[in-house]
Amino acid sequence: MNNHSPIPFDVPATCHQIYLDNLQRATQGSGRLMLMAGDQKVEHLNDDFVGSGIAEDDGDPEHLFRIAAQARIGVFATQLGLIARYGPDYPDVPYLIKLNAKTHLISTASRDPVSLQWHTLEQVARLREDSALNIVGVGYTIYPGSTYESQMYSEAARLVFEAHQLGLLAVIWAYPRGEAVKNEYDPHLIAGVAGLVACLGADFVKVNPPDGGADKLREAVRAAGRTRVICAGGRETTVEAFLERLHAQLQEAGIAGSATGRNIHQRPLDEAVRFCNAISALTFDNVDPARALAIYHGE
Amino acid sequence: MNNHSPIPFDVPATCHQIYLDNLQRATQGSGRLMLMAGDQKVEHLNDDFVGSGIAEDDGDPEHLFRIAAQARIGVFATQLGLIARYGPDYPDVPYLIKLNAKTHLISTASRDPVSLQWHTLEQVARLREDSALNIVGVGYTIYPGSTYESQMYSEAARLVFEAHQLGLLAVIWAYPRGEAVKNEYDPHLIAGVAGLVACLGADFVKVNPPDGGADKLREAVRAAGRTRVICAGGRETTVEAFLERLHAQLQEAGIAGSATGRNIHQRPLDEAVRFCNAISALTFDNVDPARALAIYHGE
Amino acid sequence: MNNHSPIPFDVPATCHQIYLDNLQRATQGSGRLMLMAGDQKVEHLNDDFVGSGIAEDDGDPEHLFRIAAQARIGVFATQLGLIARYGPDYPDVPYLIKLNAKTHLISTASRDPVSLQWHTLEQVARLREDSALNIVGVGYTIYPGSTYESQMYSEAARLVFEAHQLGLLAVIWAYPRGEAVKNEYDPHLIAGVAGLVACLGADFVKVNPPDGGADKLREAVRAAGRTRVICAGGRETTVEAFLERLHAQLQEAGIAGSATGRNIHQRPLDEAVRFCNAISALTFDNVDPARALAIYHGE
Amino acid sequence: MNNHSPIPFDVPATCHQIYLDNLQRATQGSGRLMLMAGDQKVEHLNDDFVGSGIAEDDGDPEHLFRIAAQARIGVFATQLGLIARYGPDYPDVPYLIKLNAKTHLISTASRDPVSLQWHTLEQVARLREDSALNIVGVGYTIYPGSTYESQMYSEAARLVFEAHQLGLLAVIWAYPRGEAVKNEYDPHLIAGVAGLVACLGADFVKVNPPDGGADKLREAVRAAGRTRVICAGGRETTVEAFLERLHAQLQEAGIAGSATGRNIHQRPLDEAVRFCNAISALTFDNVDPARALAIYHGE
Amino acid sequence: MNNHSPIPFDVPATCHQIYLDNLQRATQGSGRLMLMAGDQKVEHLNDDFVGSGIAEDDGDPEHLFRIAAQARIGVFATQLGLIARYGPDYPDVPYLIKLNAKTHLISTASRDPVSLQWHTLEQVARLREDSALNIVGVGYTIYPGSTYESQMYSEAARLVFEAHQLGLLAVIWAYPRGEAVKNEYDPHLIAGVAGLVACLGADFVKVNPPDGGADKLREAVRAAGRTRVICAGGRETTVEAFLERLHAQLQEAGIAGSATGRNIHQRPLDEAVRFCNAISALTFDNVDPARALAIYHGE
Repeated sequence: MNNHSPIPFDVPATCHQIYLDNLQRATQGSGRLMLMAGDQKVEHLNDDFVGSGIAEDDGDPEHLFRIAAQARIGVFATQLGLIARYGPDYPDVPYLIKLNAKTHLISTASRDPVSLQWHTLEQVARLREDSALNIVGVGYTIYPGSTYESQMYSEAARLVFEAHQLGLLAVIWAYPRGEAVKNEYDPHLIAGVAGLVACLGADFVKVNPPDGGADKLREAVRAAGRTRVICAGGRETTVEAFLERLHAQLQEAGIAGSATGRNIHQRPLDEAVRFCNAISALTFDNVDPARALAIYHGE
Repeated sequence: MNNHSPIPFDVPATCHQIYLDNLQRATQGSGRLMLMAGDQKVEHLNDDFVGSGIAEDDGDPEHLFRIAAQARIGVFATQLGLIARYGPDYPDVPYLIKLNAKTHLISTASRDPVSLQWHTLEQVARLREDSALNIVGVGYTIYPGSTYESQMYSEAARLVFEAHQLGLLAVIWAYPRGEAVKNEYDPHLIAGVAGLVACLGADFVKVNPPDGGADKLREAVRAAGRTRVICAGGRETTVEAFLERLHAQLQEAGIAGSATGRNIHQRPLDEAVRFCNAISALTFDNVDPARALAIYHGE
Repeated sequence: MNNHSPIPFDVPATCHQIYLDNLQRATQGSGRLMLMAGDQKVEHLNDDFVGSGIAEDDGDPEHLFRIAAQARIGVFATQLGLIARYGPDYPDVPYLIKLNAKTHLISTASRDPVSLQWHTLEQVARLREDSALNIVGVGYTIYPGSTYESQMYSEAARLVFEAHQLGLLAVIWAYPRGEAVKNEYDPHLIAGVAGLVACLGADFVKVNPPDGGADKLREAVRAAGRTRVICAGGRETTVEAFLERLHAQLQEAGIAGSATGRNIHQRPLDEAVRFCNAISALTFDNVDPARALAIYHGE
Repeated sequence: MNNHSPIPFDVPATCHQIYLDNLQRATQGSGRLMLMAGDQKVEHLNDDFVGSGIAEDDGDPEHLFRIAAQARIGVFATQLGLIARYGPDYPDVPYLIKLNAKTHLISTASRDPVSLQWHTLEQVARLREDSALNIVGVGYTIYPGSTYESQMYSEAARLVFEAHQLGLLAVIWAYPRGEAVKNEYDPHLIAGVAGLVACLGADFVKVNPPDGGADKLREAVRAAGRTRVICAGGRETTVEAFLERLHAQLQEAGIAGSATGRNIHQRPLDEAVRFCNAISALTFDNVDPARALAIYHGE
Repeated sequence: MNNHSPIPFDVPATCHQIYLDNLQRATQGSGRLMLMAGDQKVEHLNDDFVGSGIAEDDGDPEHLFRIAAQARIGVFATQLGLIARYGPDYPDVPYLIKLNAKTHLISTASRDPVSLQWHTLEQVARLREDSALNIVGVGYTIYPGSTYESQMYSEAARLVFEAHQLGLLAVIWAYPRGEAVKNEYDPHLIAGVAGLVACLGADFVKVNPPDGGADKLREAVRAAGRTRVICAGGRETTVEAFLERLHAQLQEAGIAGSATGRNIHQRPLDEAVRFCNAISALTFDNVDPARALAIYHGE
């Protein structure tokens, strides 16, 4: 990250310190984000939480909060409803409120995806004020290429602005999807939507890892400019491979972190905590994969 | 129920006592809800109220209020219009305002279901203030899997928050339904939507009993976490079987109550009252099915 | 009508007297409504006003106001635009503002019906305040079974509440219609929508007369409860048959009045006035059909 | 025009004089309107302004303002954007702001027409206040029979009311159109939509001349009641025939003026001015066609 | 430009000087606009920024800001998100906020285009106030002929008005497009949409160069009247040809400037700056193409 001002102009002067504090909390001073994704209870219903190869712990949503509270993380992203409910017992977690969500019941093949804003930013602000929780930001998913894209861009643009007005960070999940999208893992297309998110004014854009190696993310990182790219973790991999891949993405492509969900919470609590710690060490402290793996192994 | 704080953070401090009072009223201190459902006059038009095997009393909507006033219940859920009209004569009933409803005229096979919010929470608040009725909460139905799901989630999320801001309870009816839904009684799918409702922030989620025995609800109870699961009563059963089943659901699956409509109001007043009392004893007092059956029989 | 409170709880205390006055004006103390329907200039364009068997007078909208002013009626229902325009010369008529309307140009066979709210209740309130007209209520049509039903229920629920907040009566026209509706004159279906309207909180529900005799309305009257049922007049009948039928509906089924349009305004002024007076005598004074017929004949 | 009050009740007392002044300006005391239509730059793009048989002057929008400023007219109807731009140099023209418009690119055969409101009445009010222009009214087009009719009626009803609240006149262009409309020039249908517009509360309704002679407009004039009917000019005609026809419509059918666009502005400035003066003499001064033709010829 | 007032009446007196300053900044006193278009990161994703024949610099969005800051330009048009992010380091650039955008993923052949407003004018005003950036105007794209045109006209009309209320310039991009549009490069059609934009009240309308020579733009320039026409640059051309063409358009057709995107930013920074300077000299200083070409060559 170069030495430009970290504060965009839609953060008013009265909220500069709040914004900087939120950025500091989420990136631990590294400029990189470690996002623990816990929004799948809507997106994937219970498929990610119960089943073969999934720890028993994961069937209870409190598992997510336990991990977030005990592990070293950047932010824990989930819906406002869960945060309001579990927040009283997990007051120190840095929360990111995911503001839209839909289920996977309707396949992309049968209908282009649309996901609309749940809560307003006024509601987010009221929750922050009433609860004194560490709400550091908000998130929203867009589906470029969907016939509903225009509606989602409009919601996204306004909420990024409103989030910044409150000193909150804004993270956009960007997945090209719909009948018009031939290959949503095309590196050039992913770079395109990363650039689009920069135009929406977000602080971070979460993309899926494109086809090919870590270097395939370079175009996206450049296209996003000062909006920093974080990459979804993927699932079908060993911890070692996961850490190696993330390390490569950070070093070779210059991405600014990761968003990991299932790969964390499908493990038992203790292991999930250690896995978070490993990712955070890689992300925030710049350790090498071997050292991160040792952390995962509790060494 | 474990000993975590019963008050979510979207209830402001000024409404904590109101919320606790409403929770106390609805659960009678048991942590469980006995919901008497009286919203079918829209959902099923007059099919549930007149016909073979249905008590003559049931043709008049006041029947619902008479039961609610004379029986021991948790809450009586129905539309605002009826509450405003009959409330003056039934001031002591604990009411839950069902905020959306549609008819069954359009089959799911011909069009995915959509049901939109009728009254605003401002209107609910005005009614509560002007009437001094015991309005303890609001309800809303979502149809995960419908092509309209996103619109309903947005309404639901906002109204749960707004209800909490007023110290009201929020109950979400959650029925997976639409062309994309193969089997709406699949236990795993029902668990999924129960978890989804937790993300919406509701206090209770009403689901249909899944295929299989009471134990099939366990996944849903876990998935919903601190949002408590209540189960629809079903209809084709004897009182004895009904009470046995509910008891099993409460004990084996740990659900937190039931929502019963037709099975109550299709009986003559006196019998309906006794049936409510039986359900409430089972739910609130933890009596066994035999004792509950005796209550039903007026013993 | 039994002796329950006539004021629903969504009428605030400050408007109780206004509401009672409006109810008194519309029902002349009888608890029954005589509604002169004059909203067909939108619904049927000029088909009801010019043609074979229609009095020459009827081609001019002022005909409606002349009847309403000279006859004994409960309320005269028509659109706000006409009321604002003719009101200055007909200040004493009890008006009911019909708030939605559509034309009959698009057949139900080709598209499910949708009819949206024209004016807001704020506009109605401003007109009432500025004009000092006797605006006693508002009306709205719903089409249960239409794919657009949900949108109309939402508008209807809110406007009934808002009308009551202003001390105005609310009348809902309820016609099951759309591709999903097999027979909109089925008594059981009509009872269903009458019950639905009770849930919307309306004071009166206007239904079409179902297939069969007057007794076929009993189910609807019971289903609507304290929301009172009024019946459309129909058209193809003699005055004598009309009065006999209405008398039977009032006596045998216990409906609370009628809504008559074409059958009134398609007659010359003098005859239309006498016909209204006959209906009103039957409705308000409980005279028998023979006496009512004599009134019609000017005896 | 009979001697009823010219002020509808939705004009508040504080705006009575403004409304009367606007009516006086637009009708020059005659009760009749001469409307110079200049809204075709959206409706017909440049097809009406450049081409064979069209004066060179007409390619520049200022041509419209020059005519409006130099000729005797009732009102000049066009979009707010043009009025805001040219108003500073043409401050004395009586303007009517056309509030919706669409292009003719999409044929009625391929899709039912929809045309939505551009500016709000708050914006109109601000412009009037800031500019001190003679803004005397607003206009809006409805398409009865279109599947979108309900949306347009809702906008129209509200804006007529809001216009009256500001003391502005309201003119509705009413064209039955859409797949459901067999013949939009049917006199009975045109009468129907004229009556519909009376229900919307407009001061004037503009209709197309129906099939047949001037007498075919009588039904519409009666159906519209106190809402006065003005007739579109048509195009394929000589000046003499135009004036004869308008004279017949005024005298035989009792219409209250005309709306003429292309037939005016497709002429060179001087001729267009003389043509307007001829129409105005016929309309306002009740001269005969021969005298009007002499005015057109500059005699 | 003739000597009429440059300030439309929807700019309130309190903002006259702001508007004049913005006009002066954007046109450098020439009445002509040189618009550097940087909104393609949404419209074309990364296709315009990375690829064969595109300078390496262009992959980073900061390249746009570097050009805008170092070159002589009228305005730099891009999305609010980028401006908020890079503005702190490029405070002196004259910005124009493009308020809507969509991707090119969905082809016109498969669905008519729709592009909705991202930020509100209140948000634009807040950004201007908080940042003290040189925000001189806003932009919006309309697609006449799309089945969604009506929605876009409504947004456009309101935002032009609101922009003027703030003293901001308004530029409308106008591209006839959709199934109903046979040839979007037809000169007469382009003239039509230019006239349409004049009705929306915009200060400038950006059109694509029509089929044929520079003279084919004359009709559009006349049709737009006081709304000034600027022309898209096109891409497949040499610098010399580009400058010749623009010169011809300015001189022969009287257009008021150009909007150039890819042709600028796909060059390395230094060359891009020189190319901007050449365009600006041609536009603002009226130099001939040879002199402009020399500027491009750094002579």
